[in-house]
Amino acid sequence: MECIFCQIVAGKIPSAKVFEDDQAIAFLSIRPIQPGHTIVTLKEHFQTLLEVPLPQLQYLVGVVQKLSSAVKKGAKADGFIISMNNGRDAGQEIDHAHFHILPRFKGDGLVPWKEGQYKEGEMIKYADQIKKVL
Amino acid sequence: MECIFCQIVAGKIPSAKVFEDDQAIAFLSIRPIQPGHTIVTLKEHFQTLLEVPLPQLQYLVGVVQKLSSAVKKGAKADGFIISMNNGRDAGQEIDHAHFHILPRFKGDGLVPWKEGQYKEGEMIKYADQIKKVL
Repeated sequence: MECIFCQIVAGKIPSAKVFEDDQAIAFLSIRPIQPGHTIVTLKEHFQTLLEVPLPQLQYLVGVVQKLSSAVKKGAKADGFIISMNNGRDAGQEIDHAHFHILPRFKGDGLVPWKEGQYKEGEMIKYADQIKKVL
Repeated sequence: MECIFCQIVAGKIPSAKVFEDDQAIAFLSIRPIQPGHTIVTLKEHFQTLLEVPLPQLQYLVGVVQKLSSAVKKGAKADGFIISMNNGRDAGQEIDHAHFHILPRFKGDGLVPWKEGQYKEGEMIKYADQIKKVL
């Protein structure tokens, strides 16, 4: 089955588009966590953040910034989150790398994920593991 | 009180640093949602995504991409989320714009926020409001 976002880009599936240029497209999520929840993506298909060539990623983040301001104002939000889920185990539902812009409202009741803490020595261990593969 | 991240940048507060160059810094969150949870930020202080000048934002997203790959590998994660909370009402705790890289693991139990749906005509109304201020 063809990628849903590629089909939206091609105009084969309708969307509530808020922005489009030659490289990128933005449209409202049909399953919004909050009203105004917007998806921003490159037209070209890349699976996750890791596959997007840097110049295209840099272009996309500029579009996300521009859109974020409009989404915040247009949805009359008090704040907003930008996020990208990468991989099925990270909640990525459509395998076409995309940013979410999620308007947030004072007292909107979205509860953040619980923060934990490291055991003694564990934080340094993780930092070392990350630096080793950087 | 001086910004905590500015103090980390200045070396006045210790951190489990995983990356640093002249413009950006990355370190482990001391209150990790998952082990390997990493903060990536510009050294220069900007409050939210909206205040970061585009060239610096584009630089930062490149660092985030590079780090994401290392965090995923280093934490032996199955996926990862990148996100930025903008504004107190969006969960931003430190007013120095920063990306989170959150490793995700198969069955890690982090429950996504509930998706809603628009009433008839409401999605188009929001799209129009956003386009109007874009």
